[in-house]
Amino acid sequence: MKSPLLVFTTDFGLSDAYAGVMKGVALSINPNLRFIDLSHQILPQNVAQGSFLLGINHKYFPNHAIQVAVVDPGVGTDRRPILLTTPCGSFVAPDNGLLSGVISSYLTSVSAEAGLVELPSPLTAVHLTNEKYWRHPVSETFHGRDVFTPVAAHLSLGVAPEDLGEPVSRVFFLPLPQPVTNGDEITGQVIYQDVYGNLITNILAETLYGLGNVAVLIKNRRVAGLSRTFNDNTHVNGDGLIALAGSHGYLEVAVANGNAGILLEAGEGEPVTAVTHSS
Amino acid sequence: MKSPLLVFTTDFGLSDAYAGVMKGVALSINPNLRFIDLSHQILPQNVAQGSFLLGINHKYFPNHAIQVAVVDPGVGTDRRPILLTTPCGSFVAPDNGLLSGVISSYLTSVSAEAGLVELPSPLTAVHLTNEKYWRHPVSETFHGRDVFTPVAAHLSLGVAPEDLGEPVSRVFFLPLPQPVTNGDEITGQVIYQDVYGNLITNILAETLYGLGNVAVLIKNRRVAGLSRTFNDNTHVNGDGLIALAGSHGYLEVAVANGNAGILLEAGEGEPVTAVTHSS
Amino acid sequence: MKSPLLVFTTDFGLSDAYAGVMKGVALSINPNLRFIDLSHQILPQNVAQGSFLLGINHKYFPNHAIQVAVVDPGVGTDRRPILLTTPCGSFVAPDNGLLSGVISSYLTSVSAEAGLVELPSPLTAVHLTNEKYWRHPVSETFHGRDVFTPVAAHLSLGVAPEDLGEPVSRVFFLPLPQPVTNGDEITGQVIYQDVYGNLITNILAETLYGLGNVAVLIKNRRVAGLSRTFNDNTHVNGDGLIALAGSHGYLEVAVANGNAGILLEAGEGEPVTAVTHSS
Repeated sequence: MKSPLLVFTTDFGLSDAYAGVMKGVALSINPNLRFIDLSHQILPQNVAQGSFLLGINHKYFPNHAIQVAVVDPGVGTDRRPILLTTPCGSFVAPDNGLLSGVISSYLTSVSAEAGLVELPSPLTAVHLTNEKYWRHPVSETFHGRDVFTPVAAHLSLGVAPEDLGEPVSRVFFLPLPQPVTNGDEITGQVIYQDVYGNLITNILAETLYGLGNVAVLIKNRRVAGLSRTFNDNTHVNGDGLIALAGSHGYLEVAVANGNAGILLEAGEGEPVTAVTHSS
Repeated sequence: MKSPLLVFTTDFGLSDAYAGVMKGVALSINPNLRFIDLSHQILPQNVAQGSFLLGINHKYFPNHAIQVAVVDPGVGTDRRPILLTTPCGSFVAPDNGLLSGVISSYLTSVSAEAGLVELPSPLTAVHLTNEKYWRHPVSETFHGRDVFTPVAAHLSLGVAPEDLGEPVSRVFFLPLPQPVTNGDEITGQVIYQDVYGNLITNILAETLYGLGNVAVLIKNRRVAGLSRTFNDNTHVNGDGLIALAGSHGYLEVAVANGNAGILLEAGEGEPVTAVTHSS
Repeated sequence: MKSPLLVFTTDFGLSDAYAGVMKGVALSINPNLRFIDLSHQILPQNVAQGSFLLGINHKYFPNHAIQVAVVDPGVGTDRRPILLTTPCGSFVAPDNGLLSGVISSYLTSVSAEAGLVELPSPLTAVHLTNEKYWRHPVSETFHGRDVFTPVAAHLSLGVAPEDLGEPVSRVFFLPLPQPVTNGDEITGQVIYQDVYGNLITNILAETLYGLGNVAVLIKNRRVAGLSRTFNDNTHVNGDGLIALAGSHGYLEVAVANGNAGILLEAGEGEPVTAVTHSS
């Protein structure tokens, strides 16, 4: 018997009671639920950041996990609430691109344009229209409490996806910026800055290791060679910068025991180039 | 069999270990407890803010929930520790007004003065005097760990309220500011600013909808008409401000995809007036 | 049957998904685990702060608790991952001094130098070398996810410590600063500042109470006498400062309903002297 699990990713923060209230509503429906907070500190209304964080992290949870993802600037408008079912868990979220990071793991090629995309196999989705599984009255401004969480809690009780609404074959996709390869150069950008000030890029590190000499360029600085750990001092540049594969497989720029974001005055969107010279 | 549940509301923050230690103490008494954090980020010593947050949110939890509320600048003095029993859960807290937001849901008229009030039916309270259910030695500065949480954990095991102390019929009440109606005008104030910078007032929105044309005045700005959602752009003023019913039923002033608190340089206590003209 | 429990202390913060991902990995191994966060907001890479917080707080948890402590600037280097077994719980952590606060409770004298120390009875430790209980592939930069948490989850399932690696008799010890007694004076320092701005020193308060008149000196201010509570106004100095025994037994300097850290512009490392005059 699997213990039912909800995993939350929102921009609600932790100082207000929004996250706690969702859990109260969930336990009122299924008293056996467990909860994990992936993050409640997505930057307010930053759907792309939530999409990236979910994309790189959702595979670390049990397959029966139900993820409740709410970064929802369009709450109360006609953006659809959806359930996405994948081999790595179920996701209840607004259909505003927040699940793009999850979906892109299953796509062979990623569209450069935002818009509706056909769901790749084996993913399935349902437009959540059955108000029987919502909390009433439904607030126009807090569907996390009144739609997404109640639906997730009912799903955890065994309600079938098809009872929750209408199947849909296309969902809204918000592409994350993709790196561009030009000869020996791959140019991407910083896509996430973590609490240590590590600058996580959208360049997959596995494409760089083993290619010979690699140099990483960011903000007129150059880091020659890739480090293996934060304390590997064989490839530190004059400013203390290192480049290495982060724990999710993406190239990171960091400072050992320091903060690269502050040192470089750089953050999300900063261009990063990796230059490879075969040795 | 209901799964026993403690819900925490404190000003302890999350960086220190105070919240975690309370949970350790609770599990040492009842290993089957579950926990929800409503908020540990009440502003330090701000009893009124904690009272408001508890008042608007406590009804979203199962009725068997035991809420541990600790915003307690008078810890170690003669302010009483109490247990309040309501149809929407039990509350263990200092008797310093922190439960006023919960109690006021049951009052037909709210006193304008702080002081002892007779508990309205069906609420009952106990002055927690039975030290048998406390953790010893009792610190003079952390009753959350040594009094409130141990009492809540024992209560979750089935200890009867009357075993925890002496019944009391009056508790300390700290009135929240009430809006004033003057002809077509209702003047209240911002009572809470959330993480998005939404300014939540003490004016019930339901008193405004359906009354005809409504204009909301704050800091020399005027918002004509009430919006339904954050993205409803039919009633946006020139600064991007909107006014709408928040998820708890109170009038909010907001900026779609922006921060009204920063835009207006306004926060708790800022006067807000709603003017109604029947159409 | 005890409910298996992991307690987390890290410098991962709460905005990134690191803490949530560790819980997802843990539940994938043992679906019956419960979690408590002691703190995820240790200052980045501040092993000494983590050691202090663990040392003063670990005794408030059930004895079967497994604590996962990760402040690990040397992740991926040859610092050892270890399991420490104590009468007050098990600890999975890097062997970098992070468990010194826990270990020092069992030491009769504390070395002033950082370095390997013989474990005092009844503590035992294991160098975690059995990769069978790790998550693969192991990231060089996130052993919290791939080594410490998986080992803790397997331990919670009943795997014996000796199956997790090789016994070791010595571990790395990082001494916390100790106060110095000179005649009637004890000079220590602020070792932790909490969310209220209370300045927690490394001077045990029990050594001061009952000794007669005590005065506390910090940043050219003098507080005459020890208070019992934050609201005890019999020993307040002209700036509003008080000195009292904190909830962990250490001398604290505080301001009732105020912030001593801000008032004094003081923080960790600030010297504090307690002067005793027998009365």
